Amino acid sequence: MTLDDRAFYRDRRVLITGGLGFIGSNLARRLVELGADVLVIDSLIPDYGGNPFNISGIENRLTVNRSDIRDEGSINDLVRGQDVIFNLAGQVSHVDSMNDPYTDLEINCRSQLSLLEACRKQNPAVKVVFAGTRQVYGHPDSLPVTEDHLVRPVDINGINKAAGEYYHLVYNDVFGIRSCSLRLTNVYGPRQLIKHNRQGFIGWFIRLAIEDREIEIFGDGSQIRDFVFVDDAADAFLRAGTSEKCNGGVYNIGGAEPINLRDLSTTLLEVTGTGRVRYVEWPSEKKAIDIGDFYADSSKFTRTVGWRPTIPLVEGLTRTVEFYREHLERYLSDA
Amino acid sequence: MTLDDRAFYRDRRVLITGGLGFIGSNLARRLVELGADVLVIDSLIPDYGGNPFNISGIENRLTVNRSDIRDEGSINDLVRGQDVIFNLAGQVSHVDSMNDPYTDLEINCRSQLSLLEACRKQNPAVKVVFAGTRQVYGHPDSLPVTEDHLVRPVDINGINKAAGEYYHLVYNDVFGIRSCSLRLTNVYGPRQLIKHNRQGFIGWFIRLAIEDREIEIFGDGSQIRDFVFVDDAADAFLRAGTSEKCNGGVYNIGGAEPINLRDLSTTLLEVTGTGRVRYVEWPSEKKAIDIGDFYADSSKFTRTVGWRPTIPLVEGLTRTVEFYREHLERYLSDA
Repeated sequence: MTLDDRAFYRDRRVLITGGLGFIGSNLARRLVELGADVLVIDSLIPDYGGNPFNISGIENRLTVNRSDIRDEGSINDLVRGQDVIFNLAGQVSHVDSMNDPYTDLEINCRSQLSLLEACRKQNPAVKVVFAGTRQVYGHPDSLPVTEDHLVRPVDINGINKAAGEYYHLVYNDVFGIRSCSLRLTNVYGPRQLIKHNRQGFIGWFIRLAIEDREIEIFGDGSQIRDFVFVDDAADAFLRAGTSEKCNGGVYNIGGAEPINLRDLSTTLLEVTGTGRVRYVEWPSEKKAIDIGDFYADSSKFTRTVGWRPTIPLVEGLTRTVEFYREHLERYLSDA
Repeated sequence: MTLDDRAFYRDRRVLITGGLGFIGSNLARRLVELGADVLVIDSLIPDYGGNPFNISGIENRLTVNRSDIRDEGSINDLVRGQDVIFNLAGQVSHVDSMNDPYTDLEINCRSQLSLLEACRKQNPAVKVVFAGTRQVYGHPDSLPVTEDHLVRPVDINGINKAAGEYYHLVYNDVFGIRSCSLRLTNVYGPRQLIKHNRQGFIGWFIRLAIEDREIEIFGDGSQIRDFVFVDDAADAFLRAGTSEKCNGGVYNIGGAEPINLRDLSTTLLEVTGTGRVRYVEWPSEKKAIDIGDFYADSSKFTRTVGWRPTIPLVEGLTRTVEFYREHLERYLSDA
């Protein structure tokens, strides 16, 4: 970020929905450092990723409100007076969305509308940055995937996240609520939920390696993904929050080094020195909603705000493994 | 349709959601003629398009159930034993969706999920044909618009209709509920709601012309649209219902003769011999969600099932004007 970008957040009132979660809490830490007046809301629904330990050490430098984004009354109050909203609250499990599509709809679809309606009525001058997902693209037609690729989700979560994103764009265009969406690929790093394996495999792989357990890779491990270290993801949000050029746009936030899961796990095991890999058949419920190879072209966001990923995979994995080795029990217990 | 297609529907159990509405009732008439066992459900919400008069003359040849598609219990019961579901229930007003986004979400988004969940649990062998809309494309990047065009809705209705459509495709791909979506452009003809002007302008123009009133055209009337006569639209549904090749697909259903609104209104006034046109400024709430010129390329559906529009605009308008001249009061009263 430029010096101007950093100065922008000093004394700025910032709301982070899902702020005790993985990306939200890393973003909160950055904002506290930059001198922002941070309000975090989080429902702390078990299994969703919110963890009070995620703000350990900065508890006294921000405000936490335990609210569910589905609670229209709370949201209506909390958006008042905010300068920027980083809107990261969401249900993120693809498999859960197929088993309980209504909960996914309430959180990822209807609640996004409530938040935007609250902004329209209570705070139309606010800027909103939405945490979108590459899941909206589904199976890519070609690689790398640009923002011109069709939106064609393969699961309920992808559909509801697409709708939630579209609401932001329509509220930008029609009601002037300045909004944009960052379509994140696979984000990894400290403070990710690793209690179970329903929120993306990367954190789960890291946990298994640290615990010297067996990592199961579906198929032959040739599947390609790109990974973004969470500090780079947080930096993307900070830049989008200050940029007027982003308003009304969608931007891929992907990693610099696409890698297949075989090579990823080899790298991870070199970092940990523990754990091992076993190749297994695809479980049918996962295969049905799998998207094949995926990596994003993030050059649109680079052109717009100068962002690019800066943390190489080996460094990111090393920092992540160090973090969890120190704090593992905080991420395994039911807080 | 081929003879085989026509024979397909004999004694077939068919459910039409929104079956007292414009397209649904015209489709019901065709199905009754073909010997199908037709169950129509409709909420008859005032202003939504359902009208008991729409099935005048065939009342005794089908079953009507007054249910709201939001009523999960009813829907769960009603899908049982059906061979084909034509899923046309919806909130269709773009302007209403901006004023009351939650109702639009409940009907166009959540209720579609309920219907599909009901099919998954009660009747997984059913075939579902969904009434999609060209509104999901938003402002076209190029014309004519094919199904490869980005989904980028410009209003809440377009977003929720897109989500409703995506649910059908995911239930097809993941759960094997055979489904497809027909993205309809501007459909016109007998039995359309003309009580107010919030459900598309074509029916409203026809009413004003018949009543010898002034038609207001926004801007200079150079805006291009394509129009599909309702019999052609009904034929598209019937073909999609019999075709296994359609499963999991989206198909544009557009008109053969793109025309600007100036020429359309001239043609209409020639047909009616009454009414007149005035050009006025765009109202801001409509301009904000307007999509500019639009006409669809329907060749994908032609290639797949052989459908093409058959009723020329002048003939369609003539038949429509004749119908409303005979039955006007049935479409102006609050039934």
